[in-house]
Amino acid sequence: MYGAGDVRIETVPDPIIKEPTDAIVVVTSACICGSDLWPYKSRKASDAPVRMGHEFMGIVEAVGSDVKTVKKGDLVVAPFAWSDGTCIFCEEGLQTSCLHGGWWGGTKLDGGQGEAVRVPQADGTLVALSVARDSALMPSLLTLSDVMGTGHHAARAAKVGPGKIAAVVGDGAVGLCGVIAAKRLGAEQIILLGRHPDRIALAKDFGATDIVSERGEAAIERVKELTGGLGAHSVLECVGLEQSTITSLSIVRPGGAVGRVGVPQTPVPLPKSAWNDNVTISGGPAPVRAYIEELLPDVMEGKIQPGRVFDRVTNLDGVPDGYRAMNDREAIKVMIEF
Amino acid sequence: MYGAGDVRIETVPDPIIKEPTDAIVVVTSACICGSDLWPYKSRKASDAPVRMGHEFMGIVEAVGSDVKTVKKGDLVVAPFAWSDGTCIFCEEGLQTSCLHGGWWGGTKLDGGQGEAVRVPQADGTLVALSVARDSALMPSLLTLSDVMGTGHHAARAAKVGPGKIAAVVGDGAVGLCGVIAAKRLGAEQIILLGRHPDRIALAKDFGATDIVSERGEAAIERVKELTGGLGAHSVLECVGLEQSTITSLSIVRPGGAVGRVGVPQTPVPLPKSAWNDNVTISGGPAPVRAYIEELLPDVMEGKIQPGRVFDRVTNLDGVPDGYRAMNDREAIKVMIEF
Repeated sequence: MYGAGDVRIETVPDPIIKEPTDAIVVVTSACICGSDLWPYKSRKASDAPVRMGHEFMGIVEAVGSDVKTVKKGDLVVAPFAWSDGTCIFCEEGLQTSCLHGGWWGGTKLDGGQGEAVRVPQADGTLVALSVARDSALMPSLLTLSDVMGTGHHAARAAKVGPGKIAAVVGDGAVGLCGVIAAKRLGAEQIILLGRHPDRIALAKDFGATDIVSERGEAAIERVKELTGGLGAHSVLECVGLEQSTITSLSIVRPGGAVGRVGVPQTPVPLPKSAWNDNVTISGGPAPVRAYIEELLPDVMEGKIQPGRVFDRVTNLDGVPDGYRAMNDREAIKVMIEF
Repeated sequence: MYGAGDVRIETVPDPIIKEPTDAIVVVTSACICGSDLWPYKSRKASDAPVRMGHEFMGIVEAVGSDVKTVKKGDLVVAPFAWSDGTCIFCEEGLQTSCLHGGWWGGTKLDGGQGEAVRVPQADGTLVALSVARDSALMPSLLTLSDVMGTGHHAARAAKVGPGKIAAVVGDGAVGLCGVIAAKRLGAEQIILLGRHPDRIALAKDFGATDIVSERGEAAIERVKELTGGLGAHSVLECVGLEQSTITSLSIVRPGGAVGRVGVPQTPVPLPKSAWNDNVTISGGPAPVRAYIEELLPDVMEGKIQPGRVFDRVTNLDGVPDGYRAMNDREAIKVMIEF
């Protein structure tokens, strides 16, 4: 990405093993993330160009001498952050805070939106899957690299549980996965705040019981009406904008929780009302590495089908137009097949 | 209170039963709260005068026809908020959000810093105690009306547990009770951020293992040094100012929690770092009514001695000077005996 709206496909040197803990993965599928759209909207052309993509699956082509858990030929999924799997935070299941981890792409590492990736800390990062490469499950497995785990994290941070009322703010791929997660964790009522007919239809399929398409104060009033005047126990903030955060904090009931997984674009003042009402605010980048093991059985058994968030498939050359389509809301989420 | 620095003792009509759910309590002891100092510093003289005091014990003098759990002659302690005990929030243990509850004092209700109080919703509010009126436990029992329950709430909101590192921001009575609560819940290391020698001595008696008396950035650095560079798992924010909140959010480790019980004086922007680090922010007015039953056995057995936060005792006429002494940091907390 060279700047806002400027995504180019370029040839770069093939990745090689640099550290004994590295693996080289030949990418079989990847995707474009809603969070990729922030730089797509705003990145300055004067900034150094960056490699993009943090959600991918692929085949291991080579491993460093210290790598023990994956081998050449394995099909693997990569979480959107790489991590050593052994530090104090990884042991606590918070791999996004790994003391020796980091993020894909940028100016120094390969991105998932490319043909091959050098994976640091391969043992802590990659998860080998026992699935045929042509399995119909592949799109859903790919969502374990980010959006499904992120929606699940929002639900966990918002303390969704049996009998609870959950509200999901945002009808993007993460919000839709948040609906899946809320349903999976036993929410009794699931209110989606969104206004795109295709996304609403999918949300209903995933378990949303109510749709609120109003904006601002009207949306807050509508959620209150749907919740006996009290608000939702659990609010999943899946956007990251100031308005969506304010809405989230306005529709949560006293003693409830807001789980924030939308990357915050602007700082939001902690409202006094959240304190008065003993609201818990939690969330952050999802430790999806920890959630892959939890969610994988349900994906393998077809109990959840998060891969349905992909409504467009392209190839490497189609990536720039994929960004445009997601930015223009033509597509919910674009999958790239190699 | 007529305005900043202007506290007067005046004669008002004796309270009477107005609702069948009321009780009249003749106050035996009460106290001045750190939160009373906010209006003492800033209240405008042009505002209507308000009755003060929300922490008291007393003897039931009369009850309305619907009151079942307390009777004339009972010694009772009152939480700092009154509540019906039966609404959805009371049932969840969040009595400060009671649908039919409220706060003492102001322009409409009696305050605890007076000889007698009409107690609405007496069944949901008051807790009868089986203690002799001259028991040495009385000061500690009085803290169950607010500061001990509030310190406990900070610890709960900050997820203190066995083996955890807790940091307590603020060396007022609530912060000191936060130290007691952190110790009681099994914290392994308890760092108090404070700088008054008498309070530090008490904090050490209560279980503080480390004292940080630096301010601002230096305080943050010192806490990091004391925690292997990572920060505390649990931070108890017991002040409510912008700086103390920023400090709290800066000394918590990734995946940790900040429990805020200091009444927020200014809105604080939710920092991006808290999101990056998956920090949980929780807390609010403590549902001390729910905690009285949890904490009472430990007070009765002398396992915790929160009454030691009272370092000055006065009578009704001494209340104005009690405010001055607390505001000037001459006293940690003033008890009023009637």
